[in-house]
Amino acid sequence: MSYYKKLEEKFARIAKIKQMYDILFWDEQVNMPAGSSNSRAYVIAEANILQQEILLSSDLPELLEGAFSEELNPWQKSNLKLMNSNYLDAITVPKELNSAWVIAIMKSKNAWREMRYQNKWNEYFPFLEEVVNLTRQRATVRAEKYKISVYDAVLKDVRDGIDAKTIENIFSDIKTWLPGLIRQSISHQTSVIQPSGNFAVATQKELCLAVMKDIGFNFAYGRLDVSHHPFCGGVPSDVRITTNYLEGDFSRSLMGVIHETGHALYEQNLPSQWEFQPVGQNLGMAFHEGQSLLFEMQIGRSREFLKYLTPKIQSFFGKSSALDEDNLVKLYHVVKPDYIRIDADEITYQAHVLLRYEIEKDLMDNKITVKDIPELWNDKMQQYLGVDTSGNYKDGCMQDMHWPSGLFGYFPSYTLGAIIAAQLFNKIKQDEPGLNTDIAKGDLSKVKNWLISNLWSKASLFSPRQLLKDITGEDLTTKHLKNHLTARYIV
Amino acid sequence: MSYYKKLEEKFARIAKIKQMYDILFWDEQVNMPAGSSNSRAYVIAEANILQQEILLSSDLPELLEGAFSEELNPWQKSNLKLMNSNYLDAITVPKELNSAWVIAIMKSKNAWREMRYQNKWNEYFPFLEEVVNLTRQRATVRAEKYKISVYDAVLKDVRDGIDAKTIENIFSDIKTWLPGLIRQSISHQTSVIQPSGNFAVATQKELCLAVMKDIGFNFAYGRLDVSHHPFCGGVPSDVRITTNYLEGDFSRSLMGVIHETGHALYEQNLPSQWEFQPVGQNLGMAFHEGQSLLFEMQIGRSREFLKYLTPKIQSFFGKSSALDEDNLVKLYHVVKPDYIRIDADEITYQAHVLLRYEIEKDLMDNKITVKDIPELWNDKMQQYLGVDTSGNYKDGCMQDMHWPSGLFGYFPSYTLGAIIAAQLFNKIKQDEPGLNTDIAKGDLSKVKNWLISNLWSKASLFSPRQLLKDITGEDLTTKHLKNHLTARYIV
Repeated sequence: MSYYKKLEEKFARIAKIKQMYDILFWDEQVNMPAGSSNSRAYVIAEANILQQEILLSSDLPELLEGAFSEELNPWQKSNLKLMNSNYLDAITVPKELNSAWVIAIMKSKNAWREMRYQNKWNEYFPFLEEVVNLTRQRATVRAEKYKISVYDAVLKDVRDGIDAKTIENIFSDIKTWLPGLIRQSISHQTSVIQPSGNFAVATQKELCLAVMKDIGFNFAYGRLDVSHHPFCGGVPSDVRITTNYLEGDFSRSLMGVIHETGHALYEQNLPSQWEFQPVGQNLGMAFHEGQSLLFEMQIGRSREFLKYLTPKIQSFFGKSSALDEDNLVKLYHVVKPDYIRIDADEITYQAHVLLRYEIEKDLMDNKITVKDIPELWNDKMQQYLGVDTSGNYKDGCMQDMHWPSGLFGYFPSYTLGAIIAAQLFNKIKQDEPGLNTDIAKGDLSKVKNWLISNLWSKASLFSPRQLLKDITGEDLTTKHLKNHLTARYIV
Repeated sequence: MSYYKKLEEKFARIAKIKQMYDILFWDEQVNMPAGSSNSRAYVIAEANILQQEILLSSDLPELLEGAFSEELNPWQKSNLKLMNSNYLDAITVPKELNSAWVIAIMKSKNAWREMRYQNKWNEYFPFLEEVVNLTRQRATVRAEKYKISVYDAVLKDVRDGIDAKTIENIFSDIKTWLPGLIRQSISHQTSVIQPSGNFAVATQKELCLAVMKDIGFNFAYGRLDVSHHPFCGGVPSDVRITTNYLEGDFSRSLMGVIHETGHALYEQNLPSQWEFQPVGQNLGMAFHEGQSLLFEMQIGRSREFLKYLTPKIQSFFGKSSALDEDNLVKLYHVVKPDYIRIDADEITYQAHVLLRYEIEKDLMDNKITVKDIPELWNDKMQQYLGVDTSGNYKDGCMQDMHWPSGLFGYFPSYTLGAIIAAQLFNKIKQDEPGLNTDIAKGDLSKVKNWLISNLWSKASLFSPRQLLKDITGEDLTTKHLKNHLTARYIV
């Protein structure tokens, strides 16, 4: 057997352990009773150790060296490159540090889950401190090895292939026009009728399932469930999206499900023959958010898509002035500064990300400590959105599970995702004339076919930034996001 | 660190991988969409390989040898004995044979799930043939190693510690009195009003949850879900029982849940400090069924417990002549020969097991082939229960998932479990006077305390047969089961 084939066998094993982890992670959010969180933490840690051990098996350096001199096709070449970079990462971070990090994260997540709603920042922050310290330690080791900045090292986990300098430039740019856009868009708001009444959870679920089906979610390879914090989990052959339902407001779960379906379609359309290889995986968080935001923001909240969605909604909840097309368009175009990121509109959302980016960057650069977070959070919320979060931790700095879960460098991906979504959709519209007519019928086949052939079927064959350039003809640019927001909310 | 402590670390890793497997197994039955079955098969196989690999790590023989000469407490000694026997098993069955077996099982389970309801025996049986062949191969290798019979080797997986000869003697004994008991109990049946109407699934679930709570299921460490085939899965810190609901009959799910709760209580009360060690696990399938049948058959269907259960049922479904105490007692004491094992009463149930035991024993002994099963099934069903299954595979030899899942040697555990349940309950009643009054109030605390101190808290500290002898004063005996059945159904 060739060196390369032996590597494929090893990495397939790693991928299978990763799939165990992915299902267990989903299960933890959706099913696990609270009492099991300690035991589960040890089990999850073991899944990480097992992956590391295969990466650290003594014959790997020889196999990699041998494989690099073999004749390989382009998929195999990209696969080998990714294997090599995973290997380098594994030998860089000491095993003990990694296990300590994983266990700290599990403890912190459990503490966060319990303490967030009790607003107990003072009891919670030592857990976060431990996670931040260990995340920074991990990043520092990698930064030294690769001779990159600590924040660049943090970004490696996100696998976006976008460096800290580019991210800094993007947020500097956004900071020049975002505050004005927020002000202007608010002044353009007109009155909207809030749908009211009792929207039965079972009916909301039926509506969500119907829309998922129309958009193209394949239920032979996935599910819809409920979790506290909506997400897209599972594995490509079994994609599991979640939502949660508010009895008083169907509009949130519906648009949330469209968002997660965007994530899911990407996973469901990855090339199955590469399912268990690094090259068969998605292109990282920014591209993933690019898909979900393309389906939610570019398409889902467009007037055209709402033409399709309105009668669908009415068929489940009846007709009313709140549920007519014009009002639903207004409802889904509301701009309102508020506390919670995941409930934010697509304009103020970028301010939520900006604030988190600035704080986490300073945390990783050791310029601030975890104790400084609440005050900084409040200052920036005041500055960007005019919202006061002092003393309100649960709707302030404790609202997201990212930092409690050790996910640093992840928040910028949301804004990068919004940028990528706008950039992709701009190109799709150029390539597919008459798209709006299709969208108004709920027919997204052209969009999906474009994405399948240009992006989804290519998995990680190319680097994210290169692929974006190749398929849109432009490097990453905020231009199309700015145009989209201006066109939808101001003009 | 001592040799023994190093072994504990290794076996804790194995236990954690086993927990991954257990949650994935539960997930497969409860959540997994059909499209993922192939991928999942590979993931599950990997979980098995990983456990094997740790058992086969090169330093294990030395650690075991070293540990045997260390000073250990009784728990550690039993733990070491179990470690050693797991190790011997691992080096006995070749890795490739094991993986082939696991993959054949996954394929066979998926095929069975699809083909059972289509009655497609002719399309299904090649899958079962593959499983039987590999199971027999595995057993043959072990039989040669341990110089035991092939069926004894099969029984090792069940971990009951009851040898083939004892099982043969038990079934020979049962065969002498079971047919007569079936005839007599049928002639003792009086008319019963079948509850009819629409018993909403949500209400059935509420009733089940209420009863689980009364019996002592701890919901901080477990769940109740729905699966095609009810079972008790998960891990001791997160015990997951399942049921399925028939709109037209609440009585089946209710008693099924009491059965699974018996399993669950055992798992939930194992000593948590030994959670990740072999000695901390349950005593095998027969003892496990002993617990579930103690809660379902000895207690759940007793007149005393039905005194508690009747007002509970009425509080959910209203009063009616079908739901009065006398009728419920009759309903739960119906004896009726029929096709399906899991729906059988506790008398004809033993005939279902007898038939399966005789067939699987001959399969393992290579006296018959998989192709012979349907005819043998029909002959024996006619002989033991007067039921014709010719051409009706779905309600005949395809009804159980055990053989499709490679679970041979498991069916006898159900009868052994019934025997153990009767033997244990006989002793508990002797030790706890006035128990019936408690049971009539739904108060099972004395039963549970007895089981916790004599059995559950001891996990695998002693061998199953020895423990049974120690705590009941008798070796395994059919006497109490026969007495129980005679008293309930004939006298």
